[in-house]
Amino acid sequence: MAEEGASAPIFDSVALIGLGLIGSSIARGIRAYGAARRIIAFDSSQEVRARVSALGIADDVVEALAAAARADLVILCVPVGVCGEVARALGPHLSPGAVLSDVGSVKAAVIAQVAPHLPPGVQFIPAHPIAGTEYSGPDAGFATLFQNRWCILTPQPQVDAAAAAKLTAFWTRLGANVETMSAAHHDLVLAVTSHLPHLIAYNIVGTAADLEEVTQSEVIKFSASGFRDFTRIAASDPTMWRDIFLNNKEAVLEMLGRFDEDLTALRRMIRCGDGDGLFALFTRTRAIRRSIVAQGQDTAAPDFGRAAAKNDPPAGR
Amino acid sequence: MAEEGASAPIFDSVALIGLGLIGSSIARGIRAYGAARRIIAFDSSQEVRARVSALGIADDVVEALAAAARADLVILCVPVGVCGEVARALGPHLSPGAVLSDVGSVKAAVIAQVAPHLPPGVQFIPAHPIAGTEYSGPDAGFATLFQNRWCILTPQPQVDAAAAAKLTAFWTRLGANVETMSAAHHDLVLAVTSHLPHLIAYNIVGTAADLEEVTQSEVIKFSASGFRDFTRIAASDPTMWRDIFLNNKEAVLEMLGRFDEDLTALRRMIRCGDGDGLFALFTRTRAIRRSIVAQGQDTAAPDFGRAAAKNDPPAGR
Repeated sequence: MAEEGASAPIFDSVALIGLGLIGSSIARGIRAYGAARRIIAFDSSQEVRARVSALGIADDVVEALAAAARADLVILCVPVGVCGEVARALGPHLSPGAVLSDVGSVKAAVIAQVAPHLPPGVQFIPAHPIAGTEYSGPDAGFATLFQNRWCILTPQPQVDAAAAAKLTAFWTRLGANVETMSAAHHDLVLAVTSHLPHLIAYNIVGTAADLEEVTQSEVIKFSASGFRDFTRIAASDPTMWRDIFLNNKEAVLEMLGRFDEDLTALRRMIRCGDGDGLFALFTRTRAIRRSIVAQGQDTAAPDFGRAAAKNDPPAGR
Repeated sequence: MAEEGASAPIFDSVALIGLGLIGSSIARGIRAYGAARRIIAFDSSQEVRARVSALGIADDVVEALAAAARADLVILCVPVGVCGEVARALGPHLSPGAVLSDVGSVKAAVIAQVAPHLPPGVQFIPAHPIAGTEYSGPDAGFATLFQNRWCILTPQPQVDAAAAAKLTAFWTRLGANVETMSAAHHDLVLAVTSHLPHLIAYNIVGTAADLEEVTQSEVIKFSASGFRDFTRIAASDPTMWRDIFLNNKEAVLEMLGRFDEDLTALRRMIRCGDGDGLFALFTRTRAIRRSIVAQGQDTAAPDFGRAAAKNDPPAGR
């Protein structure tokens, strides 16, 4: 029974709804690591469907959402804001026993929007693979995107344990480390580790663009001194991020409040010339960086230097 | 007269005061590109002096500051906050006609602290090479750090044009693009492109570390979702950054005020559910990123993905 071995496909068919960076990376990962026998792809954009066909990363590219609903695992890879609408259209076509999942960066709002549209027997297990780049679209994906990254599942209490185990095995096959937590806790953790950093990055890039005393061309020219790292984050997909902020409003505003209090204290240290206070904070933040590198969540390579050699392979996007 | 050709040394001897990331990178760059015949190194730390000797990146490692003052070009590569003190000790030993420069991230304060200690005839030309990594110390430097980076000179009106031309040639030899502007304008440009980004990064990392609802280990674990990019900046040298904020106080507080106003507006958009406003901002910031990549100030490689292969060469620090 070789098929039951470690490398046997975990699902017979997987349907991906939305073939952007994440959806197209899942498609490539399934193929590369043999996680399913068949990949069905649906995207509401004719242009994306044509591109997915040309790239050959799915077995079937279907033109109707209903045609994608017959898979054993259906994954919504669309912006958080349209998950409810897609679920309403998809729900009636899902088979009992099918697993429905998603990849959204917000979980409580997705559950609230999707759950009402599901027929009994469908196993809905929300998921969030914490991986991405600043690029979007089917050409931006790659099979190793999820390697050594976390994927958080937020199953509701009534979900079938066997279905959750299969979804865990699926993400593990794509290289991710799977963790389970409540949707509410997920939304709070991501508000601080992801949503607040993006908000701050978008804000500072906006501030810099609006100055009169310093021209935009000067900001771009001298960006290597720190600013450019924010622009990378602030280049992330606008639709996706609009939806995240609108759908995780409370947690984001809560974290923003904390950030703002701390910034007021820091501003006071500068104004009062409190060098010891500044030094203490800057030393503490350095230690956190070391933990992140030690735990393999980032590389220790000195990236501010970004040697010319590292620039050689152009992304072509 | 081959020596007068394009690759002839620009200075006979260069003394580097302080052999951290920048000082040791200049030493390596001088050697690699033949920018001077002789490199004299002084550092107030016995440990650093021993390390510089062991690395063999200078011709002379001297134990007294005065012994470094005899060079044709003396560069202060020390934190901004001690430039005045070093200049007071160094000043009496400098020869008329010598060029004194620095590498500080703040210019007006350095000029105010250094200029009073200089004997007549010394050509003081403040400089700021906009290059660096999040690492510190003599082992962190490398010869190509300044390649394709900007170096800003802020000479005062009375400086000798030939001396400024020589310093320009020196930095050009090390691979930098040299630009000249007033110290006041430099401090404003850097406040927005460098000091504010660092301040914000230090602040958010501090905020995340202090939360009770989300543990520090969760923040570290899920940092790849955005947070880790801030920790890289917030791992920069604490002494250097304390001094920058204390010595460019007015410009930093001014830029922080703008940032704060914009953040208030952004917070309101989220609270009111203004999706169009958010989308418009996020689209605008994406365009700025494209300009930075187009102008060669960053690479287009999708860095959020940070493929496993890119992690292979460990920095060993």
